[in-house]
Amino acid sequence: MIVLCTDFGPAGPYTGQMQAVLHGQAPGVPVVSLFTDLPPFDIEAAAYLLPAYTRGFPPGTVFLCVVDPGVGGARPGVVAEIDGRWYVGPNEGLFALLARRADTARCWQLAVPPGASPSFHGRDVFAPVAARLARGGSVPGEVTDPTALLRPDWADELWRVAYVDHYGNAITGLRAAVLEPGAGLLLNGYLLKYARTFSDMQDGLVCWYENANGLVEFASNRGRADTALGIQVGTPFSLA
Amino acid sequence: MIVLCTDFGPAGPYTGQMQAVLHGQAPGVPVVSLFTDLPPFDIEAAAYLLPAYTRGFPPGTVFLCVVDPGVGGARPGVVAEIDGRWYVGPNEGLFALLARRADTARCWQLAVPPGASPSFHGRDVFAPVAARLARGGSVPGEVTDPTALLRPDWADELWRVAYVDHYGNAITGLRAAVLEPGAGLLLNGYLLKYARTFSDMQDGLVCWYENANGLVEFASNRGRADTALGIQVGTPFSLA
Amino acid sequence: MIVLCTDFGPAGPYTGQMQAVLHGQAPGVPVVSLFTDLPPFDIEAAAYLLPAYTRGFPPGTVFLCVVDPGVGGARPGVVAEIDGRWYVGPNEGLFALLARRADTARCWQLAVPPGASPSFHGRDVFAPVAARLARGGSVPGEVTDPTALLRPDWADELWRVAYVDHYGNAITGLRAAVLEPGAGLLLNGYLLKYARTFSDMQDGLVCWYENANGLVEFASNRGRADTALGIQVGTPFSLA
Repeated sequence: MIVLCTDFGPAGPYTGQMQAVLHGQAPGVPVVSLFTDLPPFDIEAAAYLLPAYTRGFPPGTVFLCVVDPGVGGARPGVVAEIDGRWYVGPNEGLFALLARRADTARCWQLAVPPGASPSFHGRDVFAPVAARLARGGSVPGEVTDPTALLRPDWADELWRVAYVDHYGNAITGLRAAVLEPGAGLLLNGYLLKYARTFSDMQDGLVCWYENANGLVEFASNRGRADTALGIQVGTPFSLA
Repeated sequence: MIVLCTDFGPAGPYTGQMQAVLHGQAPGVPVVSLFTDLPPFDIEAAAYLLPAYTRGFPPGTVFLCVVDPGVGGARPGVVAEIDGRWYVGPNEGLFALLARRADTARCWQLAVPPGASPSFHGRDVFAPVAARLARGGSVPGEVTDPTALLRPDWADELWRVAYVDHYGNAITGLRAAVLEPGAGLLLNGYLLKYARTFSDMQDGLVCWYENANGLVEFASNRGRADTALGIQVGTPFSLA
Repeated sequence: MIVLCTDFGPAGPYTGQMQAVLHGQAPGVPVVSLFTDLPPFDIEAAAYLLPAYTRGFPPGTVFLCVVDPGVGGARPGVVAEIDGRWYVGPNEGLFALLARRADTARCWQLAVPPGASPSFHGRDVFAPVAARLARGGSVPGEVTDPTALLRPDWADELWRVAYVDHYGNAITGLRAAVLEPGAGLLLNGYLLKYARTFSDMQDGLVCWYENANGLVEFASNRGRADTALGIQVGTPFSLA
């Protein structure tokens, strides 16, 4: 299975152009769009979401990840094999938290093939490599030290909102397991209490809960947490 | 074929997470997103749209339907076999109109497997069941009376807007066949006349027509009916 | 491969309804959504985008293209075979630039089958034909002169914005190869210089570059060109 995680947006044409490459070069392999709306250009937010949202996938899954404001510049492209899954994309930190928390990690640096567009490596560099890996082909590129994936300047948890979903729920880069059970959190001057799931929240009240992927998420039962508290991607929070 | 009808939104990550389960557990079965933007939390609107938008599908189609504000609470999950098609999802009325208008209906109540997230039964409860049905597997769960699907407190037709599409057309929960040919309708103080299709509407005028799925829909030729008349999901209307 | 180019919007239900027809009538053929958000009703914009965005696809690809405000009226539906690829959709100019620039073009006019909805030929007329072509079936319809595809009243290049993407980049209908290298462009009173790719643009400055499909595009490095300069679909520009 090939899984797409990008900031391309839910409509055209970039996802479709990558899918066409994938269907052409890895026929019969299912292609799933996991995220098409990662926050634009926000490599750090994506880096903290990826470990949570990719961990449930079977070994051998190929993640084609493109949040790539530096495309066409000096930043390298990589293939990473982390805990039995493949990741392909630009290397400016996108896989840094995956690598930091990995049991096993290997890394290859990708060359840019002649004729690749300087503005769309997703289609011209990364998708062909993802297709090749999904077919069981050998890894292209030059082996490099997986420490190249790391960003030692980044913290272990991201104490800000990394994604706001269609319901207005705000997903953070903080793993719920890090908190004391029932901890209170402070955001935009509001104290946010813990709830187990939406239906346990008092109507109109924004709470935090451990979402289905293990991250702290701010939500409101049948309401929008983002508009209720003025939350957007990047909004910081702290322990109460 | 597995068909998704949800309020998850057009982007990530929930649809992709369900698709990953489906491709993993029902390999080779096509998965189609019919609705990813049913009105959030609005079970009633979805219940009146489903009969119109699922009737054209072949026997054996599996509809995985998730509008589920009560997830993790006491509301049960169900499998329903209605007129030869399968429906899987939470039971708070989502399949009520399908069941009311059915020639044949059977129903099973689903247990929540251990380890299921209390906030994402779509991925952890309903998608595995949909995959199993699409593979031709036996129905899990306990047989229950299909009257459990019904909502006797709901009317036969929904005289309000149930969905606003990308063009600004407003789809209602009213079947056009119920109206006298050429009837006039009143909405927000406007009298809306009948037209056969968009190109028969006078420019700038909002009309109602019988849409391609048999429902009354308000539209404007090359314009937006929603902004022209201040229509949103929930806007009521009546006979003139 | 069947490729969808429509103005249906990124969510439901129209794309899913067409995909259901395609999976049912052309089992196993991959279906890719290239554009689901072509500018609504804007046949001309789509006509200049199609040559750029379809040229990279392999011979035999079937493009199912629906920007169709005249649906149900007198406008004919067509199949066009242009330079070895298939195009199916309404004929009000959608394929005019493809045909004008073609080495080889053939054309068939489609009949509307009985029972087709007068408001959704995409599902009832064009999708079944696309499925048939993708299966290798014969072309239905009556051979007609491919000059029927042309719009002699349209210019060779479209000097206006034809599409604004998720990042706020503005794609035009002008092929970059037509311009002198490094030419300056004028839009909304701003002088826009040339850059090779995003990372070569000075922060905060909107430039034009040749996008990954050969068209002139206005963009800003890690910013939104559309809001910076007040650009929307239809905004004209000229040589400086």
